Amino acid sequence: MKLADFVHSNKLKKREFNARLPALRAELLEAQNSLRKADFPVILLFAGVDGAGKSEVVNLLNEWMDPRWLINRAYGRPTDSDSETQRPAFRKYWHDVPPRGRIGLFLSAWYSKVLLGSVAQRVQPDDFQNHVQEIRRFERMHANDGALILKFWMHLDKRHQRKQLERLEANPATSWRVTHSDWAHWAMYNRFVQAGDQIIEATDTKLAPWRVIDGADHRYRSITIAEHLLEAIKNRLAESKTKSKPQTTSPQTSTTKSPVPAKPAPAKKEFKPSHVNWLSGVDLKQTLAKKDYRLRLAQSQGELNRLFRQAKQQRVSSMLAFEGWDAAGKGGSIRRILQALDPRNYQVVPTAAPTAEELAHHYLWRFWRHLPTGGDITIFDRSWYGRVLVERVEGFARPDEWQRAYKEINEFEQQLVESGIMVCKYWLHITKDEQLRRFEERQTTPHKRWKLTDEDWRNREKWDEYESAVNDMIQLTNTPQAPWVIVPANDKYTARIHVLDAVCDQLRNFLM
Amino acid sequence: MKLADFVHSNKLKKREFNARLPALRAELLEAQNSLRKADFPVILLFAGVDGAGKSEVVNLLNEWMDPRWLINRAYGRPTDSDSETQRPAFRKYWHDVPPRGRIGLFLSAWYSKVLLGSVAQRVQPDDFQNHVQEIRRFERMHANDGALILKFWMHLDKRHQRKQLERLEANPATSWRVTHSDWAHWAMYNRFVQAGDQIIEATDTKLAPWRVIDGADHRYRSITIAEHLLEAIKNRLAESKTKSKPQTTSPQTSTTKSPVPAKPAPAKKEFKPSHVNWLSGVDLKQTLAKKDYRLRLAQSQGELNRLFRQAKQQRVSSMLAFEGWDAAGKGGSIRRILQALDPRNYQVVPTAAPTAEELAHHYLWRFWRHLPTGGDITIFDRSWYGRVLVERVEGFARPDEWQRAYKEINEFEQQLVESGIMVCKYWLHITKDEQLRRFEERQTTPHKRWKLTDEDWRNREKWDEYESAVNDMIQLTNTPQAPWVIVPANDKYTARIHVLDAVCDQLRNFLM
Repeated sequence: MKLADFVHSNKLKKREFNARLPALRAELLEAQNSLRKADFPVILLFAGVDGAGKSEVVNLLNEWMDPRWLINRAYGRPTDSDSETQRPAFRKYWHDVPPRGRIGLFLSAWYSKVLLGSVAQRVQPDDFQNHVQEIRRFERMHANDGALILKFWMHLDKRHQRKQLERLEANPATSWRVTHSDWAHWAMYNRFVQAGDQIIEATDTKLAPWRVIDGADHRYRSITIAEHLLEAIKNRLAESKTKSKPQTTSPQTSTTKSPVPAKPAPAKKEFKPSHVNWLSGVDLKQTLAKKDYRLRLAQSQGELNRLFRQAKQQRVSSMLAFEGWDAAGKGGSIRRILQALDPRNYQVVPTAAPTAEELAHHYLWRFWRHLPTGGDITIFDRSWYGRVLVERVEGFARPDEWQRAYKEINEFEQQLVESGIMVCKYWLHITKDEQLRRFEERQTTPHKRWKLTDEDWRNREKWDEYESAVNDMIQLTNTPQAPWVIVPANDKYTARIHVLDAVCDQLRNFLM
Repeated sequence: MKLADFVHSNKLKKREFNARLPALRAELLEAQNSLRKADFPVILLFAGVDGAGKSEVVNLLNEWMDPRWLINRAYGRPTDSDSETQRPAFRKYWHDVPPRGRIGLFLSAWYSKVLLGSVAQRVQPDDFQNHVQEIRRFERMHANDGALILKFWMHLDKRHQRKQLERLEANPATSWRVTHSDWAHWAMYNRFVQAGDQIIEATDTKLAPWRVIDGADHRYRSITIAEHLLEAIKNRLAESKTKSKPQTTSPQTSTTKSPVPAKPAPAKKEFKPSHVNWLSGVDLKQTLAKKDYRLRLAQSQGELNRLFRQAKQQRVSSMLAFEGWDAAGKGGSIRRILQALDPRNYQVVPTAAPTAEELAHHYLWRFWRHLPTGGDITIFDRSWYGRVLVERVEGFARPDEWQRAYKEINEFEQQLVESGIMVCKYWLHITKDEQLRRFEERQTTPHKRWKLTDEDWRNREKWDEYESAVNDMIQLTNTPQAPWVIVPANDKYTARIHVLDAVCDQLRNFLM
């Protein structure tokens, strides 16, 4: 049904409301409490016309549930400085997604810009498609990661919107809620509804379905939303309990348009392993004499310094991700870059095993936290590619999870690049023999011994599995906007100059 | 010695530098690696005259050590929007303090404002004292928490500063480092040095000592700083190993001005327990009929709503901390406040057991993360007072730690209030009998049963110990700028109205 055809028809008598409420609240609290130990978060999004009760419902849910485990998020109009620190646009939403076990209540949030833009007719059709696609991706990524996403469009027909705004204005305790822009929206009711219809149609997915709520009667809308939330949580908790058999999503739930979002089905067989051995083509015989290295190091660092100063002036930020075999020389290459930089502008982020807080979020969450702004540089010593390398090989991620990750990573990087961040990725490649030589050298050199761990030896035993994973990674994530550079690293001097020159090349292209 | 009397006299020959460097680097790496498992962070601060090598040394340390475990922090000039989101001024420094086991390298940082202000003669004597006091407090809090703090003033005499700036300017790879303001500072060399002398004198403490480094010779300054850092880490690691006997800080180290900061001595016997039983005076007999409650609730919530909208307009943010006996009704009182608020403006933060990340920082760190900005409200369901309540009673904090905490908390709240944040604190008080009645009610009411845990029963057994802790807390932290409100909570209606009216009163006073 179209919003344009909507007619107010739902009411709940006070007596019935009072009769249903106590049990509902008790059940909501129970569900919230069970949820705390569950492995998924709940994301509630409220959008809709002014006066239909978005804020009121959020307040009521805070009252009916235990507010200590709720996260409320509403976003004011972005300021100029936000637009810099919060790019890409979804950074703040990523930041605010609740961890597993918690409920997040979002007011308009990632729908605000496209909705208001459409009403004001500021959004071109192409832009609209881009917006909608970003929204769908964001919701899909979190739904696939387990998030239960419920979206409510709080609605009123035009007559009831006027009545509602008048009623709010008449009451001194609520008149502040009615602003000039509310009446301006009312005057544009038809446009608002048209935009709502478009957006709902474009973003109503199985994993993150919309539900239109009749907002004229405050009892009806509150009870309806609360019951819907309760049912959804209970269903998902029940499903989680039986998740020992993962593939139980029946075809019925997928085809019937259920109001309760479907549990994400395992990834379709989209994953096609690489048939190319990307690593075999690398010429590892190159060497560089110390004298030549010194000379070229100074030249390349000078050039890099010049380019990064230009990037700083243009407020172009950079993310450099370093991956490679253990002992391939990631640290040494990173240091040669740092030497050319102003310490005011860079940050090195080591990617170790995730903390408890990081584990409670989508695996990309911790990288969103470290995005550079304002022309700064963040260097990742190991990166989000851990998902398709160590997590894949060691079984920390399920096959459907790491197989889905290639696409997610491409989308993540695309968002960064579109928001003006340069993304560079380096695989430092050495032969298995060279790795052995370096391991043994580390073992016998006192100040290097701490660098070598048992884990390095264990990883080495899985060389072939890692090689397959690296080839798939390069095959599936070597995109034009964020290409892989495979660095021949058997010779350290060669590797360092190779990296420096590659950063220079990429930066030069990006700044053009 | 005064900076004004400083004459460049230290050099290191290239040969000697090259001879000492390899062993130094190896030892630095070893020390850094041992540090990773230690229970303290290292904070290095670099200040001084332009051209004396602050950035260069930070870069070198990043090269000589493993940059994955270093945190570099330099701060640009604050923008207008920063001044709002980063108030209080020390918020960003609190945020950036490295966790235990890591090294943070700070460029000027918390010295920048007072130093540049003094040079520009923009700082009045009173302001200067306030600045310096805030710096000393910040450093003392972290030193007492275990942080090893080393501060280096990189210095040049006037002639060498000119030579240094000219040399940097002449080299294309470094000329960008010399800005107009560097030459402006050079022209004001005498004032700069005078300000430096004042600041060093005022902030050179046993726990966070300054060391002046001759910056004219790059080999000398780098080796000197690196050796000093190494020695300090090794000493502290050695002390930590023998910390089974905590009181070993000998009087010699305390009186001799050692270049290596002293390990914090246990708190002096400043703690004086309360002789007043603050809780005994509370009239718990008051009750409120449901009808009166309804009426007063509407009135008080209306007033609260009006006041908080005024606060939002004036950009006055608020922090409300709720403490109280288990089952005293904290949640219910918080919900009655939320009902009067716009969900765009508030956040409820439950204070549960700290996460691993929180444990790796000062206990106040996690509360600094949740400061409200821009007229918003943060409500803490339990708070930083856990340090002197549960952590004291359960032995999670040592006596010297919780005894020190009263002063730290007062200073924390003072900083908030001075930066324009309203701080309210509520102790919800019930009798031991009333608690028992509520526990039993929870046990028999299905939708309340989850609220009651074994821990609640265990806490109840320690009622008397908690009572002493509460009385000490009120005695020692009931300050004019952030007073305690003891809420009679045996009757829930009375308690809720009491809280609402208290928030209104405090807000009304604060906004005047």
